[in-house]
Parts: sequence; structure tokens; C-alpha cells
Amino acid sequence: MTTDNKPTLAILGGTGDLGTGLAQRWAQAGYRVIIGSRSLEKAQAAVDDLHEVMAERGVGGVEVAAMDNLAAAETAEIVTLTVPFSHQASTLEAVKPALQGKILIDVTVPLMPPKVGRVQLPEAGSAGQIAQDLLGEDVHVVSAFQNVPATALQQAAPPDCDVLVCGNSREAREAVIELVEAAGMRGFHAGMIDNAAAAEALTSVLIVINKQYKCHAGIRITGTDEH
Amino acid sequence: MTTDNKPTLAILGGTGDLGTGLAQRWAQAGYRVIIGSRSLEKAQAAVDDLHEVMAERGVGGVEVAAMDNLAAAETAEIVTLTVPFSHQASTLEAVKPALQGKILIDVTVPLMPPKVGRVQLPEAGSAGQIAQDLLGEDVHVVSAFQNVPATALQQAAPPDCDVLVCGNSREAREAVIELVEAAGMRGFHAGMIDNAAAAEALTSVLIVINKQYKCHAGIRITGTDEH
Repeated sequence: MTTDNKPTLAILGGTGDLGTGLAQRWAQAGYRVIIGSRSLEKAQAAVDDLHEVMAERGVGGVEVAAMDNLAAAETAEIVTLTVPFSHQASTLEAVKPALQGKILIDVTVPLMPPKVGRVQLPEAGSAGQIAQDLLGEDVHVVSAFQNVPATALQQAAPPDCDVLVCGNSREAREAVIELVEAAGMRGFHAGMIDNAAAAEALTSVLIVINKQYKCHAGIRITGTDEH
Repeated sequence: MTTDNKPTLAILGGTGDLGTGLAQRWAQAGYRVIIGSRSLEKAQAAVDDLHEVMAERGVGGVEVAAMDNLAAAETAEIVTLTVPFSHQASTLEAVKPALQGKILIDVTVPLMPPKVGRVQLPEAGSAGQIAQDLLGEDVHVVSAFQNVPATALQQAAPPDCDVLVCGNSREAREAVIELVEAAGMRGFHAGMIDNAAAAEALTSVLIVINKQYKCHAGIRITGTDEH
């Protein structure tokens, strides 16, 4: 296990189910991972939990650190945002200077509680577009991971689902697809950042399916053969 | 093969790839199918083609008729609309009186040529919602089949994909899921009609994937086990 030549990753709002799931998979794949939170104490607790999970799996030598969101964004080369939609804009505003020139992986889903099973896309079209507009074009916003059940990320086995990867820079999408694969999944180029609307809308559909069929649903892309 | 107890189905704009694919599968499953078109001549040609395909497959006794769209909508119990987005409203206006009390399966995808790989949802949120608004609440609009490759429908083998089924009436969704299964696929309750936005947006993503990976992509829902 090595972190040579691998970018350092930060996960802002990384103490939630999705953030900790991604942190586990990337740390286990040999990436240095920084769990960011508004509360350093919470971030540290998430790091401690992660070490416990790794110990249970018999995985040693993972490199995980706790920081506040701004320090995490400053330190990392690729930054992932996993906060509720209501905190997306304020979190990004707070770290915007630290993201210039970097890739921001936006995992935000514009759910509107209490009707989280109802597609209610924002006026800008998507949360991914909101992030891109807010951060400006010097930040490569890439939308991904909206349709992965957090429970599946937290298992040792690879999640039985694929990831749609949207963003205006092909190179940035490629970098994110590499991280998707490091997390045990297949990633697909899914178009420019405005296509994030599809994955974001699909999350509400998956919530409906989960409730209906008592499950943790994801999606697979079929018909592509191996590539 | 029998049409007893099975509703008569009409497919408006049924001469395109998707419409003829659905017509083939439903006819082969024992449904009486009416192919509707603005041109009776085109509808008849599609019926002739369908008989040819059935003959090649060694399937006899299918019941398929050609009519203009209005007569098709009047005759059928469940009506499917497979026209380009630009013809959705005008086609529905023309047959609206014939649809009252019936199920309208809307397969419309709001693609905006030339950028068909870019998600550009209409102001109403989705084409499904447009249909529901236009037809009024006495028509049970159910959105389905947006993510099924037409080529897959036209093969003898079942398509390797699932179908998201959205609509405000659970009973109507159930009836459509039965038709999805008759066509050889799994259908999932995916929420109210506004959730059609998810499947419609996903079509642009699948178009991007098709171009990128030279394939005919579809989706599968994972994590639900058998149901």
C-alpha cells in the first residue's frame, strides 16, 4: 500500500454515511484521505471510526487525517463535497479560494425535505451546475456518486452499481473515473456538468424504489460490454 | 396465444423504431396492437413489416391493425405515445377526447436537437408532466420506456434493461408494469409523474454513453433482489 503518485483527497462534510464510505474505500485503496468537517472533533471521531473499520478488515497502514473543511480543502489536490443540499453553497463559499485550479467532486443531491422521493431540481438545473457557477471556471467541478447507496460503500465488497460522471473537463472526469474505480466501481463519462441533473433526479427515484421494495437500490449501465 | 382479457393497445406515432419495437413485443405476447400514425399508409407499412418479423420468428396469429392516430386512440384501452418531443403536444391535443378515462403511456423524451446529449428539461419539469397537464386528471398519464434502446426492443431476446414507471395513479402504474413485463423487462414504481424528469434526463446521459462507448446503453436497477 502506497500513496506515491496518488493525489491527496479531502472529503468535506466527510463525517456522514456517504463521506465516510468514500473515505474508507479510498484509504483502503492507498490514497491519503483527509476527512473535513465544520467541527474538527467530529472529523477526528470519523477518523477514529475509520481506523476501527480498517482494523476489523485487517487493513493496516492507511493514511487518514482530520481537519476543518478549509484546511482540508487547502491541503488536498482533489476535494469531494458530501453535504446536504442546504449546506452546499455555504460550504463551497467558505472554501472557494482553496479550490482554485483543483477538481471538486460534487456529490450533492438537491433533495427537498420532506418530499425527498420527488424530483425537484433547482432553477439552475442541477446542484452540479450551482457548484460550477459558484466556483467559477478555474475549478473543475465533476458530479459523481449520487446514485451509490451509502450502505454499499461501507461494505468490504465492491458496491453493485455504476457511477455517472459529469463535468465540463474531460481530463477532470478521467481523474474522477480513476477514483471511482479505486472505490471498486465503474465510472462512465456522462456529459457536461448540466447532465448532473440526470443523476441527481435519479436519486429521488431510487429513494422511492428503496421505500417500495425495502432495499438499497443503485443503477448499472447495460449494453456497454467491457471497456 | 390469445387476446382474451388483455387490453387492446394503441401506439401513436407507432411507425418509429421505439414504437415498432414495442408493437412487436406486445403483439408477440398476445395483445391486440393498433399502430397509429398521422398517415394510414405509413401505419399499414409498419403493420406489414411487423408481420414479416413475426413470420421470421415463426410466430403466428398476432393481431395487429393500422389506423390513424385518432381512430387508434378511440379503439384502444391503453394508448402509448412514441413521437418526438416537438410533436408531443399537437398529437395529444388531437386525440385528447379519445383518451378520457384511459391510461396514456408517455414515452416522450424532451430532447432538444442538435444537443441531444445534453439534459435540457422543459420548464414544466418533464414531458410526462406536460402530458398530464395537457390531458387533465381524467387521463392517467404514466411515463415509461425512455431508457430502453430501440434496437434492444427489436431483438427476439428480452432487452437487458429495466424500466422506470412514473405516474400519479398506482393502479395505472401497475397496469403499465404488467405491459413492461409482457415486453420482457422489469418495471419499477418510480414515483409520481414529475419523477419522469429522472428517466427523461437519463436518456441524454445514455446518448452520451452510446457515443462515447459505441454501444446501445440501458440501465438496470440493482440491490432490489427478486420481487
